[in-house]
Formats: sequence, structure tokens, C-alpha cells
Amino acid sequence: MKKATLFTALFVGTALSNLPQVGMGTVVKSPGGNIEMAFYVDQQGRPTYEMSYKGRPVVLSSHLGLELAKDKHASMGMNEHDLIDGFTIADEVTTTFDETWKPVWGETATIRNHYVEYAVTLLQRWEDKRRPADPTLEGLVVTPHERTIVVRFRVYDDGIGFRYEFPQQRDLNYFLIREERSEFSMTGDHTAWWIPGDYDTQEPTIRQTRLSEIRGNMRKAVNWNNSSVAVFSETGVQTSLQMKTDDGLYVNIHEAACINYATMHLELVDEQTKSLSTKLEGSSNVYTPNPLPSPYPLPKPYTFVSHLTPDATGLKGCMQTPCQTPWRTVMVSDDARDMLSSNLILNLNEPCAIDDTSWIHPTKYCGVWWEMIVGKSSWNYTDEYPSVYIDKVDWAHVKPNGRHGANNEKVRRYIDFAADNGLDQVLVEGWNIGWEDWANLWKRDVFDFTTPYPDFDLKALNDYAHQRGVKLMMHHETSSSAQNYERHLEEAYDLMNRYGYDAVKSGYVGDIIPRGDHHFSQSMNDHYLYCIKEAARHHVMVNAHEAVRPTGLCRTWPNLVGNESARGNEYEAFEGSRPDHTVVLPFTRLQGGPMDYTPGILETQLSTWSDNHHFVHTTLVGQLALYVTLYSPLQMAADLPENYVKFMDAFQFIRDVACDWDDSRYLEAEPADYITVARKAKGTDNWFVGGKCDENGHLTTLKLDFLDPGRKYVATIYADAKDAHYETNPKAYTITRKTVKANQTLKLQQAPGGGFAISLMAQ
Amino acid sequence: MKKATLFTALFVGTALSNLPQVGMGTVVKSPGGNIEMAFYVDQQGRPTYEMSYKGRPVVLSSHLGLELAKDKHASMGMNEHDLIDGFTIADEVTTTFDETWKPVWGETATIRNHYVEYAVTLLQRWEDKRRPADPTLEGLVVTPHERTIVVRFRVYDDGIGFRYEFPQQRDLNYFLIREERSEFSMTGDHTAWWIPGDYDTQEPTIRQTRLSEIRGNMRKAVNWNNSSVAVFSETGVQTSLQMKTDDGLYVNIHEAACINYATMHLELVDEQTKSLSTKLEGSSNVYTPNPLPSPYPLPKPYTFVSHLTPDATGLKGCMQTPCQTPWRTVMVSDDARDMLSSNLILNLNEPCAIDDTSWIHPTKYCGVWWEMIVGKSSWNYTDEYPSVYIDKVDWAHVKPNGRHGANNEKVRRYIDFAADNGLDQVLVEGWNIGWEDWANLWKRDVFDFTTPYPDFDLKALNDYAHQRGVKLMMHHETSSSAQNYERHLEEAYDLMNRYGYDAVKSGYVGDIIPRGDHHFSQSMNDHYLYCIKEAARHHVMVNAHEAVRPTGLCRTWPNLVGNESARGNEYEAFEGSRPDHTVVLPFTRLQGGPMDYTPGILETQLSTWSDNHHFVHTTLVGQLALYVTLYSPLQMAADLPENYVKFMDAFQFIRDVACDWDDSRYLEAEPADYITVARKAKGTDNWFVGGKCDENGHLTTLKLDFLDPGRKYVATIYADAKDAHYETNPKAYTITRKTVKANQTLKLQQAPGGGFAISLMAQ
Repeated sequence: MKKATLFTALFVGTALSNLPQVGMGTVVKSPGGNIEMAFYVDQQGRPTYEMSYKGRPVVLSSHLGLELAKDKHASMGMNEHDLIDGFTIADEVTTTFDETWKPVWGETATIRNHYVEYAVTLLQRWEDKRRPADPTLEGLVVTPHERTIVVRFRVYDDGIGFRYEFPQQRDLNYFLIREERSEFSMTGDHTAWWIPGDYDTQEPTIRQTRLSEIRGNMRKAVNWNNSSVAVFSETGVQTSLQMKTDDGLYVNIHEAACINYATMHLELVDEQTKSLSTKLEGSSNVYTPNPLPSPYPLPKPYTFVSHLTPDATGLKGCMQTPCQTPWRTVMVSDDARDMLSSNLILNLNEPCAIDDTSWIHPTKYCGVWWEMIVGKSSWNYTDEYPSVYIDKVDWAHVKPNGRHGANNEKVRRYIDFAADNGLDQVLVEGWNIGWEDWANLWKRDVFDFTTPYPDFDLKALNDYAHQRGVKLMMHHETSSSAQNYERHLEEAYDLMNRYGYDAVKSGYVGDIIPRGDHHFSQSMNDHYLYCIKEAARHHVMVNAHEAVRPTGLCRTWPNLVGNESARGNEYEAFEGSRPDHTVVLPFTRLQGGPMDYTPGILETQLSTWSDNHHFVHTTLVGQLALYVTLYSPLQMAADLPENYVKFMDAFQFIRDVACDWDDSRYLEAEPADYITVARKAKGTDNWFVGGKCDENGHLTTLKLDFLDPGRKYVATIYADAKDAHYETNPKAYTITRKTVKANQTLKLQQAPGGGFAISLMAQ
Repeated sequence: MKKATLFTALFVGTALSNLPQVGMGTVVKSPGGNIEMAFYVDQQGRPTYEMSYKGRPVVLSSHLGLELAKDKHASMGMNEHDLIDGFTIADEVTTTFDETWKPVWGETATIRNHYVEYAVTLLQRWEDKRRPADPTLEGLVVTPHERTIVVRFRVYDDGIGFRYEFPQQRDLNYFLIREERSEFSMTGDHTAWWIPGDYDTQEPTIRQTRLSEIRGNMRKAVNWNNSSVAVFSETGVQTSLQMKTDDGLYVNIHEAACINYATMHLELVDEQTKSLSTKLEGSSNVYTPNPLPSPYPLPKPYTFVSHLTPDATGLKGCMQTPCQTPWRTVMVSDDARDMLSSNLILNLNEPCAIDDTSWIHPTKYCGVWWEMIVGKSSWNYTDEYPSVYIDKVDWAHVKPNGRHGANNEKVRRYIDFAADNGLDQVLVEGWNIGWEDWANLWKRDVFDFTTPYPDFDLKALNDYAHQRGVKLMMHHETSSSAQNYERHLEEAYDLMNRYGYDAVKSGYVGDIIPRGDHHFSQSMNDHYLYCIKEAARHHVMVNAHEAVRPTGLCRTWPNLVGNESARGNEYEAFEGSRPDHTVVLPFTRLQGGPMDYTPGILETQLSTWSDNHHFVHTTLVGQLALYVTLYSPLQMAADLPENYVKFMDAFQFIRDVACDWDDSRYLEAEPADYITVARKAKGTDNWFVGGKCDENGHLTTLKLDFLDPGRKYVATIYADAKDAHYETNPKAYTITRKTVKANQTLKLQQAPGGGFAISLMAQ
């Protein structure tokens, strides 16, 4: 396929009339032929690609490149010449790859990685003209430069990935990125499910609008209550971005393997765009200087342009060759279910880097957490001081506030509950000193991660848990004081090893310290990975909240068992989430890796046991369905034991459901409407089926043809009652048990905001 | 002395005519009566102080206060109301303190700390007026606020110190400092010895000008070749700032105990000042936003205003009460020698925080260093790659460049040299991987501080050194990648403990990583102290180069045995230093603590053994004198062993000279002209005398009346030869030995750029 000269129907309606001459580029087809990707260099020498699906354009001609920053150290060999234009093609290599690999945990037992790879080496020559150092000389000193970069494409049947690679060479050794300018030119005014592009938070409500409506909806899309709002543009959005075209194509843009690089946002060029990256007024990213306007022409409307998260100085990345960017991904299908079953993001990551993974295991857990979120008890132990220095307080003698959640008596009850109900671990938040003044006060030394409050007996509670066959789960809230966390990391993990913890939930609430940095910058992305690697050294699994949205790194580092990185179930205790929220997440946030959504709030009316008057925007059964529809190897039973006691028949599903799978079949899917999936529990013949829908309800006709033919299964069906409704009657459910076989079909009516959950036990 | 009502001649010519009423303030006299300090609150409620020496005004009426920053977290309890005006005096307490303490090492065996302390509690009341949250309500909601701060003065016979203290209270819990506005209003157009106020470098040549000439000399005072130039103003200077008035008073402004706070610079208000902190054009502190102009009126000309080093966002400090600022110090005398013998800075620091100091010891050392500075050999091992990832290079198989200094054979020779000549340690720079591309490339993971180059046998060399009775001295160049250093710190110190190192020279060349931060910011000052404390835990002595200028912290942490933090002897290999440089340093840089100046370059003509055509701007004997005139418990014999071999008779002084003292007598001193000091070696009756002068030469009449009367001493006198001259004949010296007694006088002619050195061995 090397140097193909056929530019086919793929280019109809695109800018290909500008193609300088036939032969300066290549068309690459995916293994099964669904996807065609064309790459060429345009008349300005700008690298350009296009993409189609089954002959229908998906990405119109789009430029690739990076603007480099000027730096005071240019004389040290810091390269400043933009990697934007003036390129010619020096070499092209096309290869095919096909392998099947086994994830340590996942939705399926094996994953096929099958693609056609196209690596194009681009040559850039330019001259620096400078006045001679000797002022008596006239004319200019001309210095010729030459360098190469590689753009590597991988073309799958369900999408493409591409990345920039920077070989080590004289004229490209160190460089600073001012901005990456990767374009994704859409074919029209698609429907999109998006959240505002923000350097520090990923937790706003997902919006569904046309691309042309993003600008008009940006201000109300921002969660202004969030402590950290850093929105860079009126049309900036985050990835993974799910779209749907008017003619029924599902298109998703994200990234894979974001390592030693800033997280990418997308800035939409629309009809009103005058220049890129105009900061949203009122956004509080006051510390980062606005980027300079790009000197290059704006692409045409409906084009997304990459926008990287800056560091404290406004720059986007410090690079040393040889190096590469993360993969930029475009997934596409005419069937929404393919968006959910795709493994493209995982496949673009490197294989597992941990030799012995025996200590990594899927985990079901409960925890002392929801009662603090709801406001019934507190993380902190005392209210005696307006602020504390943790090393100066006499913790044994401070006045307890009487509301501290993480106390010995309560934790023992949770341990008993976990042990009695087959849960593996008990998370305890607020166990360690420092919660008195932990957030948003630019306080660096906020926690030490090793000292428990006086009413939390670290040794006795771990001993008791281990006696009862469960483990405690560690909690490290960092308050985004990354500097402080790194200083204590080794001791903190050592303590975990000493007492028998093997998993940690970490948190990054508030503004990053060192000041001026952002949650998704190159340095913070490095911090998160540093913690994951150090944790692996200690055989510790990590579940990082408020950390960067994942990009499939769990393939390489499977001890990264979870992230939050989106609006989780906790928001039901604040302002609530829309009923369709959880039937968007698998299309967007979950593309990069599992989410610790913390489902299982069966007592949906918080006022029944607290002063919190909010309610969960699903039915009770809807909460059960999430254990199947929101894939994660880490699943919390998030409600209080005393609430589960009220619904023990329904809770049985949470006890039974697996969190690791040999197979997964997405049976129905439409973004923001419904998702139905059947999964086969790892190493068994048992299946679990979950269906979840939006506020409109949904009737599912469930064909059981995924079952082993000829085998009988005992089905326990957890369904919304006929009159169930997430607002008016959320806790109305039915549980039906019957024996079923593969040739049967079940009709399941999901209530508004409801769902269903089925366990199918092979006999 | 409480609430004294006498405002004496001290106030003549000052703003005291505005004093609201008699009684609102206090005059405090030093124990011996030399110094008078007056404090009062002016009509705007601004805290104000004045100071006189023997009845002569030194500081005219000067305001004190801090501007606080607005922050997005104001609602979390972040205080924003400036601490500038609206104060009344709530309480005044005056006490006297007198103690004598023993430093772990120092210029004298004991130090007297004798002062009168005046602590004034200032009350500030104000109201916030805001529109009511309910929009149907009219009018304003008025919230009254009240808070107190304490200004604590310590009045010594040779100067004053004052600091701000912030008690914990509802209306002052957390706050951000926009700028400290401590004023030092000078009485006239004094002569000053200054370097440009800079956030990142302390190594320019010291300038001597009138205050009114600072602005006109700023551009040429900046060392534009330095990789990090961040000059904040046309009239900004660093402390310690030495001045001399036209009527013969010596005045010095500095700070003491700079902990958890940004380093203070001074910005001079002169006749041309329109507003404070106008960045010097061309200064490369491009990353820090310019501070907003102060809303308060400018003080009158010849007033210095404090200017703190910013963080990456331009702010100056994140504070949590209870807390305090460093001490701001004003030293004064009519005798320049008192500037050098003063212990005011040390006395204002807290007592030693290390229980067992037995492992801390003064140290004389040589090292593999000067030959790299001069350019004869290299820190790096290979030139094979334009850049390296230290963990990816196969170091055992890279191609050596043949110029690597820190090789086994050479280090053994240095060990032998040290052992043969009574030197305690051998510094080896360039022993560890990463020097290939170590500076100014925004490379975070530049060193690991534990992996030697293949030609440096860590174990064998340490074993050999220990056999020979000396130790190796560790070297940690951080390249200012503080983040990387902290990640490796524990392992690095562990390695030192394992192999028997007990001292480390650390370095901070280049721009700070995390990007945007500065060498002297609050967070970097914390970093340096963090390293010192962690080192103490490992029984490691620290000598930090390019780190913040010291402020007497070595009293509290005596394992901080040295700093560079100024233009060291190494500049003689670059562009040279002026001959008067070393007779200014004791008045300025050395006020805060000892300097690792690295004297002893006896082969002053570098071209005799290298391709470097620079020369040392002292005579050979001048280099010897520095061991006495530049006090330090850490003294390097910086030249190469093969150069010392050429001058073994002169080298004998370096062998003999002590570096810890029971007594020190400053016999002659004039800034930038000459310094003569006699010191008694610790635990002996031997004395060493050093005299150093500027480019004009100096005749010293040395009365030996400091010697024990009736005792005989063998004096070895190292003197410039008659025709010696630092430029034309630097290596011409005489060595005379004779027996002397206390009643004798020696005439010693110092050559231009020369000096003398005498050892006096008690018989």
C-alpha cells in the first residue's frame, strides 16, 4: 500500500482539489476495509489527513502540526522553529499488525489488536538568516536546518489513532510546545455530548447540543460552584467527545497513552471564531497567561483544534527527543454499540509493564464515605481550631466534634457488613489527621498520610478486618498538594504495606500546589503516573479521584484500577445529575478506562436518614443496573449498611454481581438514551445483564441468545415496578426468579430514570 | 520604658510633626544606649518606626505593613483586607533579654545575645459592606471585622530587628501576600554596595554607587550572561545591602530567619520613581506576571521598600496563622569593624534544633572541580549523544569523551593529596550520570544522585579514602529541578550514609523546575530548608550553591555549613572579579552566614596549565588571606594538587590555617578597601591573621596585642613581594618566620589586589 496513488471517493467534497500532485501521499485502509485514511502534504507543506467510514467522510482534510515556543534558552539548543509547514514526505512505511492479548482485568478475556499502520517521515528544511556577529560585515549569515518527524497512523476497523514522533537529531533535541495544532474537521453540525474544556475540573453536567450551539451554551455548562474553574474558550470541550451525525454515524475523539504530555482539549472553530483560545470571561484561571494568538490561518468551521493544558507559565510541554505525543483517536461506527465495545484506546497503549500482576485483583467494596458526602458525619475530628498545623496539634487531647465518621466503632460495623456480604474491602475516608482545613487554602502541608486520628486504631482495625477476611482500603486525599504528597509517598505506601492495605483511593480536590499548575498539565500527568509506578513497586492498586481523565494507561499499568475524573454518583448529594448522565458516560469518560462511579445508593431519598434534601436521579433498580452498564474492576456498594438492610432482597444483586469478565455483549445502545449489556463473569458460566435508560424510560426486548445453548440458567430479574419513576416512585421494584434458556426472550420495561439488572446463574 | 512620651531629637527633621498625639507610641533604647528606636501609629493608622544611632538619625519615619492578595477562595476564609492602615495600638510590652550561647562552630566560642524587646499589638477594625444576597432587600449588609497583629522589635547596640507576627484569629486565618511594604527611609544619598534585585541570581559584580546612581547603573550591573536574570525594577537591590553615610555611619539592611517566606529585596524610591516594581526591560522573568501597582502613596526619595520574590503566579506568600515574617534587620555603627563582628543576624535566629551535633564539624577540603570550571576536563562522561535519558543509556558501553574529570585514577590522586596535607575531604563533581545535558533545558529528570559513571568506583574510592583517613564529599547538582531532587532525596542521602559521606555540596544552576518558580520564592526557600532538615536526619552537612542567600539559619541548623549565594572565586575563570570584591563580601553576603568562596587558587594564571586565558584578580598571597578574612567553617583548597606542588611553601598556610575559632578580632575594615582580622584557632592558643585589600594596596600596621602577653609565638608571615601586583606580578611573595610577642607591631605592605596571611603558633 506504500505510496498509493489512488485518491478515491474518500476525497469527494474535501479540499483535495488542492493536492499538489498525485503521489504525494497515501491512502490506508483498515484491515476489514471499513475505514480509509488518506495522508498528504498540502501546497504549504502542511501535513494533512482525511478519514472515511464505509465510504462516508468522517474527518475532512485536517492539518497536523505543533507550534513551538520561544525560550530564553534558545542558545542552549532549544528548538523554536514551528513544526507546522514546509514539510515534504521523506519516507512512508505501511505494515499490518494482528495480535490478541489478555488484559489483567477487563470486559473480555482477550482483546484483539488488529490494524494497518502507516508511518510517514516528514522532512522540514529551513534557513535562519541573521546579521553577522561582526558589525563591520554586511549581508546576512544563512544557516540551513533540516529535521524530520514521523506521523504514525494506526487504522482500525473502528477508528484511527495517530501520533507525532520526534527522533533525536541536531535540529530537534529539546523544544517547548506553545500549542499542538492537530485538527479534526467535522463534516457538519453534529450533535455532541460535551463538557467545557477546563484545565482543572471534569465534573460538570454533560451537555447535548449541536456543535453550533456549544458557544451559546458554554456559560451555563460551566459548573461555577466548582473551586477550580479554568475554561479556556467559549467553544472549548473535553475529550472523550462523543458525537452523532445527522445521517447516523457515531464519531468519538479522544486520546490514548497520554504520558509525559499535557492533556488535550478540543477547541471548536465555529462561524463566530475570530481567533483561537479566547478565555471565557469569569473563568478563574487567572494565573496562566493567555496564549499568544496563533499566526496560522484558522481552519474552516466545524473543525476542532487541539488545545493542551498549560503549565504555570502558559506553555504546554517541555520535550526532549526522542519522544512522541499521545495518540489522537477518532472512533467511528454506524452502530452506537461499537463505540462501547471498541478496544481502540487500550490497544494503542503499551503492553503491561508489571511482570508479576498476581496482586492486582478486581474489588468490590463499601466504605465510610457516603455519610460524609451527604453531610451526616464529618471527615475531620475536631472543630476546635480555625486551622491546624498537623504536627503541632496535640491530637490526643483536642476536643472531638462528635461527628467524626472514621471511628473505631463505625469502621468495625462496616467491616462486619463487608464480611457478611462478600465485599472485599472497606474504604475509610477521614482516618488521618488534617481534615480540619484541608481544601482550597493553598496549604501545602495539609496531610502526612500516616497519622490516624485518635479514634481510629490503625492496627486493631486492620487486624479485625483481616480476621474477618476483608481488607481496609487506604485513602489519600492530597488536596492537590502534589508536592506534599510526593514528599510523603514512600512512607505512606510503606505504612500500607506494613498494615496490609493493597489499594488506595487518592484524591485531588482543589487547586494544584505548586501554585499556578493545573490538574491536567504535563507535570501533573507525570505526577499521577509517578504515583502509579511507585504504588506498583509497593504492590498497591490505585483509584485516583479528580486526577486526569484516563487514556487507557491501565493496559500498561493495570494497578490503575480506577479513576473518577468525571461527575460521579456523589453529585446526587449536591445538585443531582440528569437521569441520562450514566447513559452518556460509557460513550465519553469511560472510553479511557474504568470509573469509580460509586453506584448502589438504594435509599435514593437522602432526607430519610439525613438533613440532605437531595435525591438520586435514578430508580433503585437503576442503581443496580450501573454495576453492569458502567464497567469497572472496582465497584463500590456506596450506600450505608443500614440503608442496605432495608432492601436486602435488592442488595442481593450487588452481592452477586461480578466485577471481572470473560465476555461482554453490548445489546442496545444510544447515547443519552439507553445502554443494555450482558457480561459473562470471569471463570464462570454465569451472566449478568444490565439495562439503563434516561428520563423517558425504555422497553428492552432481551434475547438471551448469548447464553450457552442447551444449558439452563436461574435468572433473577430486578426490575422497576410498573409505576416506578426516578422522581416520584424510585424505590418501587420487583424481583422475579425463573429458569431460562438461550432461545428465550425477556421483555423488560425500564421506568423513567430506571433500568434493570439480571443475574443468570448457570445450572 | 512602656508608653514613653518623650519624643526626643531623634525625630528632628522627620514626619513626627504629624504624630497624632503624644503617647501613641514608644521610644526604645538599646541596652548600651547607642540605638534608639521609636514606634508609633500615624494619622492614617499606619505603623511607623524610626531609628537613630548615638543621636544621629539612621532610619527616618518609615511605614510598616503588608498588602494582601485577592483570591478566588476568599469565601473559604482567605483574608484579603490589607494590613496597611487603620491600626491602633492595643498593647505594648517591653522586656530585656541577655544570654550568652555557644555556636556549634563559628568565629567566636560564645555569642552574647543582648537586646531590649518591644512588642506592640496593633488592632485593626473595618467593615465590609456588601449588597444583601436577597435581591429584594435594599441597602448594604455591614459586617464588622477586627483583628490584631504584633510587630516585634529587638533593639541591640549594633542595630535592630523587627518582624510581623500574625496570631490565629477569625479574621486572620489564611491569607496571601501581594507584597510586604516595610520601608527603610534613609537620611540621604548614601554610598551603597549593591547587586541588582533579582529573583534567580546573586552572582553579579558588586557595584559601588550613590543611592541616586543605582537607577543609572542598573543595566550594566545586571549579569546578562547569566542563564537566569529576573530583575524586577530599575532600582531594585538585594540584601544584605551595605551603605555608608557621608558623615561616616555604616548602615546595613538584611533579614534574619527567613523561613516559610519569600526572600526580601529592596526597591529604592528615588526622584524618578513613578510607581513601584516596574520590570527592567530585557529581564527574562517573562513568566511571572507583573505585580499590580500599589494603591498606597509612594514614600519619599531615598526610601527602600521591601519587595518579596514571587511564585509562578506573581504572588509573594501563602500564610496560615499563627505565623510570622522573617526579621528585617538594620545594623549600624560609626566603625566599619562593628559591621563584621556583629552577631545580630545569628542572634535573631532560633537556637539549635539538633540535639546531637557531634557529627557536625568544620571541614577543609580539596576536590575535582577547578579543572572543570577552567575547562580542562569535563563533568560529563560522554559526548556521544546530543541529549540523554539517564535511565535509557547503556553507560557501561557508551563512548567516553576522554576528558571526564571524576575518574578513579584522578580521584585517588586527590585522596592522596588530601591525606598527605591534612585536608579532611575530597569533593568530586561529575561522579554521577546525567551531566551530558544537565543545565537550562527544562529537563526534569536530569540526575538520579545515586548512579556513578562507569569510571567512578563508588565503593573502592570511598574505601580508599577511608583507609587514608579522609572522606569523600558528595556532590548533588540539582540543575534547579527541585521536584526531581526531592523525589530522589531519601535514596541519595541513604547512599551517602551507606558509603560514609557526611557532607554534600548541592547546586541549583539554571531555572527552577517546577517552571515559573524562582530561586528565592517562599516554596524554594522551603525546599532548601526541607533538604537541610532531611540531611540532618541523615547526619549530613549541607553546602548549597546557587541556593538562597543565608539569613543566619545556621544557628538553628548548624549542619548548614556553607552556601555560595554570591559571586564566588569560580568567576576568576570566567570574566573575573574585581580585586575589591572580597573586601565587600564580608559586609554583605557573609552577614547571613558563611560562604563557600573556594579560595586558594595559587596558580593565578590559568593559561599556565589550560586553554583558559583568564587570571585571578588577587595576588597569590591574597588567596591565602581569604582563608582568614572570609570566615567559613568549610574551606576549600580549590587549586589543583599539581599547582600546589609548585608553591608548597605558600601552601603550608592552607595546611595550617584553622577553620573554627575561639575568638575573632576585626582589626581594620573599610568596605571595598581592606579588611584585617585576627582569629584564635579553636581549642588552641594559635592565632591566624589575614589582611586583604582592593586594587590600591594597603599598608597594615599590625599590633599583636591580641596575643597572650608574656607568651612567645612563632610567626610565619606570608606577604606580597615588594613588586607584587595582582595583574602584573601576582605570584611574587615572601615567607618570613620569626618569634614574636604581644607587645610587638608588624608593618605589612599589601600589594594592589594583594594581602597577607600570618600564622602565630604559641610556644
